[in-house]
Amino acid sequence: MEFDLIDLIRARCAVTRADVHLGIGDDAAILAPPPGHDLVVSTDTLVAGVHFPPGTDAHDLGWKALAVNLSDLAAMGATPAWALLALTLPEASRTFVEAFADGFAELAAQHRVALVGGDTTCGPLTITVVVHGFVPPGQALRRDGATVGDLVFVTGTLGDAAGGLRCLDPRDARAAQLFEAPGDTREALLARLQRPTPRVAAGSALRGLASAGIDVSDGLVADLGHIAARSGVGIELDAASLPASSALLALFDDAERLALQAAGGDDYELAFTASAARERDILRDLARLGGGATRIGRVVTGSGVRLLDATGTVIPLRRRGWEHFA
Amino acid sequence: MEFDLIDLIRARCAVTRADVHLGIGDDAAILAPPPGHDLVVSTDTLVAGVHFPPGTDAHDLGWKALAVNLSDLAAMGATPAWALLALTLPEASRTFVEAFADGFAELAAQHRVALVGGDTTCGPLTITVVVHGFVPPGQALRRDGATVGDLVFVTGTLGDAAGGLRCLDPRDARAAQLFEAPGDTREALLARLQRPTPRVAAGSALRGLASAGIDVSDGLVADLGHIAARSGVGIELDAASLPASSALLALFDDAERLALQAAGGDDYELAFTASAARERDILRDLARLGGGATRIGRVVTGSGVRLLDATGTVIPLRRRGWEHFA
Repeated sequence: MEFDLIDLIRARCAVTRADVHLGIGDDAAILAPPPGHDLVVSTDTLVAGVHFPPGTDAHDLGWKALAVNLSDLAAMGATPAWALLALTLPEASRTFVEAFADGFAELAAQHRVALVGGDTTCGPLTITVVVHGFVPPGQALRRDGATVGDLVFVTGTLGDAAGGLRCLDPRDARAAQLFEAPGDTREALLARLQRPTPRVAAGSALRGLASAGIDVSDGLVADLGHIAARSGVGIELDAASLPASSALLALFDDAERLALQAAGGDDYELAFTASAARERDILRDLARLGGGATRIGRVVTGSGVRLLDATGTVIPLRRRGWEHFA
Repeated sequence: MEFDLIDLIRARCAVTRADVHLGIGDDAAILAPPPGHDLVVSTDTLVAGVHFPPGTDAHDLGWKALAVNLSDLAAMGATPAWALLALTLPEASRTFVEAFADGFAELAAQHRVALVGGDTTCGPLTITVVVHGFVPPGQALRRDGATVGDLVFVTGTLGDAAGGLRCLDPRDARAAQLFEAPGDTREALLARLQRPTPRVAAGSALRGLASAGIDVSDGLVADLGHIAARSGVGIELDAASLPASSALLALFDDAERLALQAAGGDDYELAFTASAARERDILRDLARLGGGATRIGRVVTGSGVRLLDATGTVIPLRRRGWEHFA
């Protein structure tokens, strides 16, 4: 081995936590979960050419690989603590690994996440991250808690990352046009795609307030479909209420924008339900955290997710969201 | 999606544990670590064409993907509890996934391991498993506890899996000859390669007895090198004492056998150090568990691992073990 990839990564991810008794460098990590808390664990894989375009900047990739996982913890209302990184690389490129580790470490430091283990292997570029967080017993936000009459909310804005991806797609006739977009509108969308912000503080704030929650990774309609299915309810969304960034408004017409917002995916915002009595507290608390939240619909009897126009007519969607193995 | 891969896997991995509050099916699992224990966490990735030959039986692969991870817990003396599975597949093959999940579940059931989460993605066949186990506080077997004067031991027999791999290698002139091997000798070696047994009970039994431990995955000399480096000591091994199965003895001459035992890898036995005062208890306890253990060397001042012949002369090794990115 020309150099030790693991040492390279470890040196860059130096978050110290008292609950890590032994980190990288043995057969396993030895950790001390806080007494009286639930442990929340999630994993997400990113595959080159599937979840990100070949040639994606390594620093962005390191950030995003952790971000999409922290987003799952945020959706549970958990406070992040520990991560593991399984990195499969076609070749032992020091430059790539250093940049990747820097991106990973930058986000990890923001959330005091310690990298406690992992594996580096040779093969097609694939990144699996595992994250652990804590939540007071019974307070995790689940998908199965929505009840008829609840309202539906989403943090931040929708469709930006999918809009950014459109700007990069060489097969898209609009891409060249988007490349010429004025000012920083295009860059704003690309930043959402390449360096998403996991809504960790929002997730924690929603403990005890939201009835169900999920992060928007596959697309709003598809992801809310999981809450509907697990909770045994239907969900109606008001198309006009879906929040959009100024960049998305500037670059796409109404129909394109709605498709990106409803089914684009990669938003990493939190979609959640709550009783109407909680609305004021929720909107106030999340506005204080900076990103804010918007009421976008309601929980109804039935099943599935319907997107409605201003007259209450269902808007057909060509695509509900990201289809795995589609 | 033609069918739900995750449901297929979940249905086959139905180990129920009271400490799993929410398993597969939400953004994350919600788990309750036992009070007053350390949590031990490890991950290992298997890549097609790197860690296993293309065309490896899916049932074996499911078993092995979990086995190599449980072996890491065994090396820490931890009792397994929970696993996550990140499975990247070139296509959504129901046949493959069912067989893979059956192999995984068969071993998981033996150790009461609950599959609590994971991710299925499309891409080149890559399997990352994460395992969690428990150990009483401060009792985990680490790599850094060996001291000069300690003895060195290994469980079971060495070199079988590497011998099995030789039997499969189409570039190996011996493979055809090995294919003709009498009786079940060849099958015995292939079983060690394809369905290794993690030494979980042995690892637990060594808590409080061994001073340092590691599992033999990359090869005995390479893996003991990690104990030597982390403990700041040297290790001398007596070549003649390395344990060999009757199948290995039947199929390979002395020089070939020694190379397989010392550097073959994929053994998933436990190599460990302990004070001479513990030898009798260790050999008795591990014999009772079935696999047994053998004294193979000693911890000395200095650094590195040396393999000695009967006269005490160093035997040069062409290869110390599996080289990542070599």
